[in-house]
Amino acid sequence: MRIILVGFGVVGSSLARLVLKSGQELKKPLGSTPRLVAAVDSKGYAVDEQGLNIERLLIRKAKTGTVSTGQQGMSVEELIRNVEAEVLVEVSPTNVDTAEPATTYIKTALDSGKSVVTANKGPLALSFWLMVNYAARNNAQLRYSGAVGSGTPILEFGRLCAEWENITRFEGILNGTCNYVLSTMEKSDADFGSALSNAQTLGYAEANPILDVSGLDSACKLVIVSNHVLKTKFTLRDVVVKGVAAVTRAQVVSAKRRGKVIRLLASASRHLKVGPEELEADNPLAVTGPLNAVRFVCEHSGEKILVGKGAGGVETASAIVKDLIGVARDSKRINEQPYLVNESH
Amino acid sequence: MRIILVGFGVVGSSLARLVLKSGQELKKPLGSTPRLVAAVDSKGYAVDEQGLNIERLLIRKAKTGTVSTGQQGMSVEELIRNVEAEVLVEVSPTNVDTAEPATTYIKTALDSGKSVVTANKGPLALSFWLMVNYAARNNAQLRYSGAVGSGTPILEFGRLCAEWENITRFEGILNGTCNYVLSTMEKSDADFGSALSNAQTLGYAEANPILDVSGLDSACKLVIVSNHVLKTKFTLRDVVVKGVAAVTRAQVVSAKRRGKVIRLLASASRHLKVGPEELEADNPLAVTGPLNAVRFVCEHSGEKILVGKGAGGVETASAIVKDLIGVARDSKRINEQPYLVNESH
Repeated sequence: MRIILVGFGVVGSSLARLVLKSGQELKKPLGSTPRLVAAVDSKGYAVDEQGLNIERLLIRKAKTGTVSTGQQGMSVEELIRNVEAEVLVEVSPTNVDTAEPATTYIKTALDSGKSVVTANKGPLALSFWLMVNYAARNNAQLRYSGAVGSGTPILEFGRLCAEWENITRFEGILNGTCNYVLSTMEKSDADFGSALSNAQTLGYAEANPILDVSGLDSACKLVIVSNHVLKTKFTLRDVVVKGVAAVTRAQVVSAKRRGKVIRLLASASRHLKVGPEELEADNPLAVTGPLNAVRFVCEHSGEKILVGKGAGGVETASAIVKDLIGVARDSKRINEQPYLVNESH
Repeated sequence: MRIILVGFGVVGSSLARLVLKSGQELKKPLGSTPRLVAAVDSKGYAVDEQGLNIERLLIRKAKTGTVSTGQQGMSVEELIRNVEAEVLVEVSPTNVDTAEPATTYIKTALDSGKSVVTANKGPLALSFWLMVNYAARNNAQLRYSGAVGSGTPILEFGRLCAEWENITRFEGILNGTCNYVLSTMEKSDADFGSALSNAQTLGYAEANPILDVSGLDSACKLVIVSNHVLKTKFTLRDVVVKGVAAVTRAQVVSAKRRGKVIRLLASASRHLKVGPEELEADNPLAVTGPLNAVRFVCEHSGEKILVGKGAGGVETASAIVKDLIGVARDSKRINEQPYLVNESH
């Protein structure tokens, strides 16, 4: 499988390492050995249609700050259009205002018949169905497991829950950074600022944590869960969002005294909402540390709660690999009908 | 879809009610309207190859204590062999000593080309691969989602986690009754006996809770999870089992003072083990009340925890319905190849 990788930050480089480490064992589920035929970051690119040397790519990035070999002459769109590959993996930074340049990259790939695997929340949070339908019209696949929950398969699990019965309510903690901050405030005497600063030191929060703290990251993920699992038609603008920056130590202490904890909760029933809420301390959603936790309430089979890490390079990369396997499997289904019966067993 | 239902206790009667209530919406996923063509309990049976009247069946069971219409002349095996149906749903009581009569019922159905959906732990805990291979040899399906976690899809979720990477460890709370008892002891001043008596009053424990308290119920489920997800070849005899009856209030209080809780933990790594263990109070597995909680540790994508009710009539019935849909889907795949491509979209 030939892969164009756009974005070479924590997630992109983790994917490169995972392909380097597990390429041989991925040969079977992917149908062929995975090869990075192009890698792109904000400073340039490297292309080799035979497959880049991933060790050298990682070392170059570490030493020079870019994957670029100095090759020039193509815009990123041209590269995506012209380099032969089966899949674009799009993991450039999320832009919640315009969803660009990711949206253009993804459309360009789909236009040229390439499937797309992305962990980028922007295009999905701003125009979910436009992207999904764009892929369908081009007979290409668009997969985005890593956009919510990183390695914790929240979207896939939601679909599993919704297989034959209605989901009457969804709620969850979709941002591990805020959860680390809030649970640190309740376990120590930290105020919001020092808990956030801890989170940054430990790598749980970005240097600029505005997307996390404002609730916007949770809101993007909520839109994606709701549209993917509940088949709603929301966009980011439909979410009533309140962040966590105004949560005080006094509120956390007062909640604790009453056997409760404060968590940044995202919920979908008739409307989408993100904001700090009090939960009973023994509510299984009331996890501590940099975790995600989601609850699907099913019509017949009751409530199901899924907990796991919600961020991390290797975890998100593992979700991308899972999507790549899905691309290979479904392409095979479409192209090679005779293999279908064997495959289903 | 024609169904023979053997066992008409809490689970069997819940399934009958669910078919009564949701029969029409199940028509599409099942390929045809579900019909109970026979119902069997310990006192007799009712057969109608056109489909039993479920309302009358439920009322008769409530009034007379049996589904029997007074029809006679067939043993249960003969009934399973001779009544025309696509599926046997086997939900008679679990027998952990001999796994009978369930094993015979299941084999009889498979022998006559019927698929089997069961929530019975006995046959799977005592001879998992024998049963699975028996089904395969007969070209019939054997499904058992409801045997672990009732409506919480622990087995399916485990397979999802194991799709392309190794699961290095599994651990979990697989018995809601014990979890209710232990968490009640830590939240009130109840001792083991009075917490168990509460559980019985609330319907969380059987009148005879020996399978729960001894750890044997958890051990059966552990064998099933391990064999289904990790492809091990264990049986119930391989599990080192310790129950919860010896857990004292003093131990619970002492653990609490150290920020810990005692839970009946089932674990699989190289060996299978069930016994009371101390967990940190903020461990996401440390749920309170009659819940199940399981943790799959995945090689690349990290830990995933699933929490939900682990018992209940309607929840287990919903797992059975899910399995019936699986039977219909896979039978269709085998019989009608041309539909495969449409189905996968």
